[in-house]
Amino acid sequence: MADEVILLDFWPSMFGIRCRVALAEKGVVYEYKEEDLWNKGELLLQMNPVHKKIPVLIHNGKPVCESLVIVEYVDQTWSHKAPLLPSDPYERARARFWADFIDKKFYGQGWKVLTTKGEEQEAAKKEFIHSLKLLESELGNEPFFGGKKFGFLDISFIGFYCRFYSYEMCGNFSIEAECPKLIAWGKRCMEKESVSKSLPDPQKVHGYVLELKKAKGIE
Amino acid sequence: MADEVILLDFWPSMFGIRCRVALAEKGVVYEYKEEDLWNKGELLLQMNPVHKKIPVLIHNGKPVCESLVIVEYVDQTWSHKAPLLPSDPYERARARFWADFIDKKFYGQGWKVLTTKGEEQEAAKKEFIHSLKLLESELGNEPFFGGKKFGFLDISFIGFYCRFYSYEMCGNFSIEAECPKLIAWGKRCMEKESVSKSLPDPQKVHGYVLELKKAKGIE
Repeated sequence: MADEVILLDFWPSMFGIRCRVALAEKGVVYEYKEEDLWNKGELLLQMNPVHKKIPVLIHNGKPVCESLVIVEYVDQTWSHKAPLLPSDPYERARARFWADFIDKKFYGQGWKVLTTKGEEQEAAKKEFIHSLKLLESELGNEPFFGGKKFGFLDISFIGFYCRFYSYEMCGNFSIEAECPKLIAWGKRCMEKESVSKSLPDPQKVHGYVLELKKAKGIE
Repeated sequence: MADEVILLDFWPSMFGIRCRVALAEKGVVYEYKEEDLWNKGELLLQMNPVHKKIPVLIHNGKPVCESLVIVEYVDQTWSHKAPLLPSDPYERARARFWADFIDKKFYGQGWKVLTTKGEEQEAAKKEFIHSLKLLESELGNEPFFGGKKFGFLDISFIGFYCRFYSYEMCGNFSIEAECPKLIAWGKRCMEKESVSKSLPDPQKVHGYVLELKKAKGIE
């Protein structure tokens, strides 16, 4: 019997993007189900009763939740091609450390850049750029975070790359001027079909960000 | 050449406890270095420049940071005995999901129980107990979160168990009355030498919590 694979997702989600790219890297055929986060579907509530959040991967009826957990599950389940996590314990620990760093820093710091003004925004930008530079130092002079090969840590951050345009527009700054190597990395990733077909258009994402701010009463 | 293993830690840390228990499960001989968190040592700042936090495992001069990353590194590096993470991809994803749940919920919710009063504390206790019950439901009727065997998820939560006394004292409630299976699980874990020798005395932990509250000006 063929595998039944369903992804519950929401198109601008940087966490959903991780799962899309991982599945594309592995060549897994799956059904994409768009969720309305303002009116969550029965399937989402049933499959992720704890957090009630996308993304959820449903593999033969069994749910896997939390994007980094999903990426590893995909890597281990479809292990025949495109290994994502390093096999060496130290390299693996390093990739996990930085993926955790991304989760701890960029969502919150990025949101502040998008939604504040004046001094508060200047402080937010400073923190955000500091985190970007730390991450850029981990990239070093390699083409990908995984070294010569695109992998787990690249997947962990690529969803934020298509939000860069929005950070720049809302924050009135240039990420490329601060972190040119990170921008070069993003462009390199976009040359991969698994990435370019999984990422939404940055301008469309920006439109969504503006709508979201309006809905939340943020000028 | 024998491995040189150093753990930078702080005795009441539930995150440090994870590493101690994992190393004890594997029978790894290591040097324990107590950190003064109010006067952080050069070695800590050098080995974890990003977060500047304990625990840090230094293996032959190379640092591994973040407790869950360390536990997995220990599991993979000393793989000859006591496997900690499930090998089955789905069980592994499940263990990771709940470990992530523990990190997202219990530190913050527990801190609120310890440091608030009145209505605010009642609300904090309600949230905290809700999270405990969710975790207890994952345990089900098994002796350990890993099923018949003590493993990764048990290690992820055991550090919080020795803080239960303090939550109860500060919050004036009984965790056993709410979650009897979780208390039975904790007692079962304490029968293991790897756990009992790694956990500080709950009353001593409570003394530390009271000192910490005083230092922060919380009555």
